[in-house]
Amino acid sequence: MENLKEDEFFMRRALELALKARGRTSPNPMVGAVLVKEGRVIAEGYHRRAGMPHAEIEALRAAGEEARGATLYVNLEPCCHVGRTGPCTEAIIAAGIKRVVVAMEDPNPLVAGKGIKILREAGLEVTVGVLEQEARRLNEVFVKFITTREPFVVLKVAMTLDGKIATSTGEARWITGPEARAYVHELRDTYDAILVGKGTVLKDDPSLTARLPGARDPVRVILSSLADLPLSARVLNLNSSAPTWVAVTEQAPPSRIKALQGKGAEVLVCGPGPQVDLKLLLKELGRREITGVLVEGGGTVNASFLANRLVDKVIWMVAPKIFGGTKAPGPVGGEGVEHPDRALRLKDLTVKKLGADFCFEGYPEYPEER
Amino acid sequence: MENLKEDEFFMRRALELALKARGRTSPNPMVGAVLVKEGRVIAEGYHRRAGMPHAEIEALRAAGEEARGATLYVNLEPCCHVGRTGPCTEAIIAAGIKRVVVAMEDPNPLVAGKGIKILREAGLEVTVGVLEQEARRLNEVFVKFITTREPFVVLKVAMTLDGKIATSTGEARWITGPEARAYVHELRDTYDAILVGKGTVLKDDPSLTARLPGARDPVRVILSSLADLPLSARVLNLNSSAPTWVAVTEQAPPSRIKALQGKGAEVLVCGPGPQVDLKLLLKELGRREITGVLVEGGGTVNASFLANRLVDKVIWMVAPKIFGGTKAPGPVGGEGVEHPDRALRLKDLTVKKLGADFCFEGYPEYPEER
Repeated sequence: MENLKEDEFFMRRALELALKARGRTSPNPMVGAVLVKEGRVIAEGYHRRAGMPHAEIEALRAAGEEARGATLYVNLEPCCHVGRTGPCTEAIIAAGIKRVVVAMEDPNPLVAGKGIKILREAGLEVTVGVLEQEARRLNEVFVKFITTREPFVVLKVAMTLDGKIATSTGEARWITGPEARAYVHELRDTYDAILVGKGTVLKDDPSLTARLPGARDPVRVILSSLADLPLSARVLNLNSSAPTWVAVTEQAPPSRIKALQGKGAEVLVCGPGPQVDLKLLLKELGRREITGVLVEGGGTVNASFLANRLVDKVIWMVAPKIFGGTKAPGPVGGEGVEHPDRALRLKDLTVKKLGADFCFEGYPEYPEER
Repeated sequence: MENLKEDEFFMRRALELALKARGRTSPNPMVGAVLVKEGRVIAEGYHRRAGMPHAEIEALRAAGEEARGATLYVNLEPCCHVGRTGPCTEAIIAAGIKRVVVAMEDPNPLVAGKGIKILREAGLEVTVGVLEQEARRLNEVFVKFITTREPFVVLKVAMTLDGKIATSTGEARWITGPEARAYVHELRDTYDAILVGKGTVLKDDPSLTARLPGARDPVRVILSSLADLPLSARVLNLNSSAPTWVAVTEQAPPSRIKALQGKGAEVLVCGPGPQVDLKLLLKELGRREITGVLVEGGGTVNASFLANRLVDKVIWMVAPKIFGGTKAPGPVGGEGVEHPDRALRLKDLTVKKLGADFCFEGYPEYPEER
C-alpha cells in the first residue's frame, strides 16, 4: 500500500512533466520520466518534441552515474525499436536502473509490451498500470492515431444555455466570455488541425489561428465540396507557417481547384460527392500525420461528423445567457434521431467553470448498429 | 468573530428547520426558530403550515420557563401584527428572551422593521443580517409575492446537451433520468401552481401531479386562448384535490368555456387576445394567493414568459445526450434576440449533478429597456 501511494505520487509527476509538451510532440505521445532513489527525485525529463530525445533519455542524461540502482517512473512503456532517438530499453538497462514503473503499455504495434518484456528479461523489476486511466486520457490522441492511423476527432461547440450557436439573424460574436475563448485558442495550440465548413468561412471569415503567446497554428482544414471558397477568405491569405487544406469532392471544377492552389492551399479530393466523404478525409489526414483534429463546425458539419460516428470527444461550452428564437441555429443540425432511445449518449461527461461559462467534456458512446 | 461564527451556526439550523415545511406554508414564508442558552440548543420550532403557530411560538412553547434569558435565532423578523396566530413580538418579550438574532427583515409591508423596533424598545438586544443572503434565497417566493402580490415564476426546462426538448418527430419521453424527474416532482410539490400551454396538453397529455409519497398536487394552470382543450385531457379528468384553471382570452367561445367548466375547471379570462395576457394572468394568480408558479412550457410558452420579463428563476436540466435535428425543437422559441449583446443573461448560475443529468439554476438579469 505504501509503495502504491509512492508510485502514484511519482507517476503523477511524470504525467505533469509529459503535459508540458502538449501540442508539441505530434505524431509522438507526450511522455514524462522521473528517476527516484531512496524516495527522492534525482532527475526528471520529458519528451519535448518529435525528433528530440525521449523522456527516459533526458532523465538518464540528467542523472548520469547517479542513475545506477534508481527507480524510473514513466507514463508510457519505454520503446524498444530504433526510432528517431534509439531504443530506450537499451539505455535504461545500460544505466543500471533497478525498477521501472510504467503507467500504460505502448499501444504502438511496434512496441505493445515488447519493451516491458525486454526490461524484465534483463532482470529489472517492472510494474505496469499505475495511474493507467489518467495516462490513457493524457495520450488519448496518440492512442487513437497509433492504433487506427486516423486522427482523434474533437467536436467543439459554444452555445447559449438555450442551445443556440447564433442569434436568429446569424450573429455569433461573442457567445462565450474571454476565459472560454482563451481556452479555444489553447485547444487550437493542442491539436494538429482545425476543421470548419464553408458556411463558417462565409459567415465569420475566421483566421483559425491560435492567438496565444508562443502558440503554433494548427493546419486549417476547410470543407468545400465544390471548392467554391471566396479567394479573399482569411484562411487563404494568412502569413502563417501552418498550411490551409481544402477538402473537396470529385464534383469540384478544376478551375476552382487551381484557383485555391494558386492561393497556396492544398486541395484534397475526398470522394465522388455531393458531400465531402469525411471518412476518406480522416484517412488522408492520418496519412499526413495529423493525429488530432478540432472540429469547430456549424450545425451541419457537426451533425455529419456525429451521424457518421466520427467524433471521439466533445468539448461543449455553455454561456449563461438565452438567445431564444425558433430560427436561431443549434449546435447539431441534420435530421437528428427520431426516438429519444436512439440519442447519442455521452459518457464520462464532466463540467468545469471557465469564467462565467461552463465547459462540458465527454465521450460519445455510439449505440450498437441495428 | 467567535460570536459571529456561533450566530451563523445556529442560524443555519433555523434555516434547516424552516425548509422542513417547503411547499406547505403558502402564502406564508418558511420560518425556523432555535432557542439557545449558554451555547446549547434548548428548543426548536418551525412554521408547519398556514394557520399553524409561527416558528417562534413553537420554540417558546417547547422551552417553557427555560426560555427566560435565552437567545432566539429566527430566519425572518418576528411579526408584530395580529395575524392568524397573534404577534410573536409580544410572546418573545413575555417569555423573557434576552437577545434575538434575525437573518432578514420581513419584506411584508405590515412588518418591515416594526417587529425589530418593538423588540429593541422592550430592551432586547437584536442582531439583524446573519446569513441574510441564504434566508432571502430560501424565501424568494414569499419575498416576491408579499412585495408585489404576484407569484414568483420559475421556468423549468429539460433538454439534451445540444439544446433539444424533443426529437425531430416530437418525442420527448424521456430526456432526463429518474433522479432529475424525481426532482421535478419535488418542484411540483414546492410551488403552488404549475403552468403549461395547450401544446403540451395536446402532445403529451400530462397529469401534472407531484408523484411523490406525501406530496400535494399543485394547481394546474393551462394556457388556451380559445378554450379549445380536448375535454378528454388528463388535466380535466383528475381525481386530485388541486383544481385545474384554464387561462383563456375574450376571444374564447362561451360554449367552450361552459364545456370546460362542466369538467370542473375554472376559466380565467385574461385580456382581449389573441394570446393570453400573461401579466393579467399573474395578477389573477396572485389574487388567488398563488405565491409561486412552475412554468413547464414548450418553446413558445417559455419564449413568451421570457420576452415579457416575467421569469424570476430558471431551473434548467441538461441530459448527457444528443438528439440533433434542425427540426427538433429547442427550449426557447419565439423571435429571439437579434444581437448577442441583447441576450438575456443569467446571474448566480450554479450547476449540480442529478444522476447522470446536470441541473442549472439561476436568475434572469433583464437588460435595461431602451
